[in-house]
Amino acid sequence: SLARRCQHRSTAMLDVPFLPFCTFLGTLGLLCVAMVGTWCQHWRGGFSLDGSSQTFNWHPVLMVTGLVVLYGAAALVYRIPNTWSGPKLPWKVLHSGLALGAFVLTVLGLAAVFCFHNSQGTPNMYSLHSWIGLGTVLLFSCQWAAGFGAFLLPWAPTWLRALYKPIHVFFGSTILMLSVASCVSGINEKLFFSLKNGTTAYKLLPAEAVFANTLGLLILVFGVLVVGALARPSWKRPDSDSPDSRQ
Amino acid sequence: SLARRCQHRSTAMLDVPFLPFCTFLGTLGLLCVAMVGTWCQHWRGGFSLDGSSQTFNWHPVLMVTGLVVLYGAAALVYRIPNTWSGPKLPWKVLHSGLALGAFVLTVLGLAAVFCFHNSQGTPNMYSLHSWIGLGTVLLFSCQWAAGFGAFLLPWAPTWLRALYKPIHVFFGSTILMLSVASCVSGINEKLFFSLKNGTTAYKLLPAEAVFANTLGLLILVFGVLVVGALARPSWKRPDSDSPDSRQ
Repeated sequence: SLARRCQHRSTAMLDVPFLPFCTFLGTLGLLCVAMVGTWCQHWRGGFSLDGSSQTFNWHPVLMVTGLVVLYGAAALVYRIPNTWSGPKLPWKVLHSGLALGAFVLTVLGLAAVFCFHNSQGTPNMYSLHSWIGLGTVLLFSCQWAAGFGAFLLPWAPTWLRALYKPIHVFFGSTILMLSVASCVSGINEKLFFSLKNGTTAYKLLPAEAVFANTLGLLILVFGVLVVGALARPSWKRPDSDSPDSRQ
Repeated sequence: SLARRCQHRSTAMLDVPFLPFCTFLGTLGLLCVAMVGTWCQHWRGGFSLDGSSQTFNWHPVLMVTGLVVLYGAAALVYRIPNTWSGPKLPWKVLHSGLALGAFVLTVLGLAAVFCFHNSQGTPNMYSLHSWIGLGTVLLFSCQWAAGFGAFLLPWAPTWLRALYKPIHVFFGSTILMLSVASCVSGINEKLFFSLKNGTTAYKLLPAEAVFANTLGLLILVFGVLVVGALARPSWKRPDSDSPDSRQ
């Protein structure tokens, strides 16, 4: 039909190739890491391990690097067309290795904020940010362990892999959305904590506030683009287990 | 193959029917609306139109009701199997009508916070929460206007509808993710503002903090479930324009 031909042509017009998109996404991810590092170094006093607010500064840097950027890279491994044929094991090792790297940075990021709170006598785990953040990390640890057990242990039965795969895929995107929500609420709360004196009050929008607000928006854009890329039908492995793609 | 048969059987095991899922989602949405209303009524002093913090209280109630719950209902209209056959126009009118209702509540919700800030002499639009929130509302207004122009005006050409549809679908999920991120950062910031006196400090986790943190988590769960339902291949209209589903 005409509609179908039009649709085919217009869908083709929107077809961004995956690899240039990934280059853009990688640049955006590196920009987020550079900006969170710059924020903490230039405006928040830099980094240390003494339990002061310079210890806290590791928290945003490690979370953005691990739970957003490296996690996003791990999630996108199976969208690389090279992974769709040939032996799967090397790609599984890459996917789980990147996710393990993201997880290690995340745990260090948690350690930084607990160390800071404990040395200052501040209670842990009261804010909505902390509830969402810890929930995200707990889901991520279950996701990694279950993914390792189901897809990397050679004796995991085929029915278990087939049953668990759509669950793993769903939680893959969900954990990224939760980690972006954690970052946004965390940056917002940190700016209210830090910017409250006279001329640098958050409500006067000093340079630091514009910079960190922009960082929050870029993290959101990064997360939306990764979740969108994961959901895009034409970027999934053609023999993937979505009912739509079965012949 | 055995793997394919296993996969078929296990996918069937995970097949939640759409309508019971919607009943659950509707209950969760109503619970979020009831909880945000209870929070503002019971702990934040109730509602008024005098520019005081009781005027502000309309802001969270209208945003959760409009930009999350009613918006989610609008987004899911085309996942109801009844919409897949017969005349499309009544469903388009329902979809755009629910979205328009969500948009009206959202604009009133914005008016509430601007009125509160202006009558208190507080600057507008400085926090990351406000940037994300206003960005979400601007995207939503573009989404509604473009959807109306492309899908409801009878003279919109077929090629335009086909070109714009995947964009409309992508931004449909994106706007919901952004609105959930806005809600979470807003609840977090409101609790830091409101709970700072002695025995009711946020960090001591009084009942209000537990209640509103739980509300934030439920809004997140609602958003994740709606975005997941929208992405689920077996709940999409079988003739939808995903390349995978073309025969």
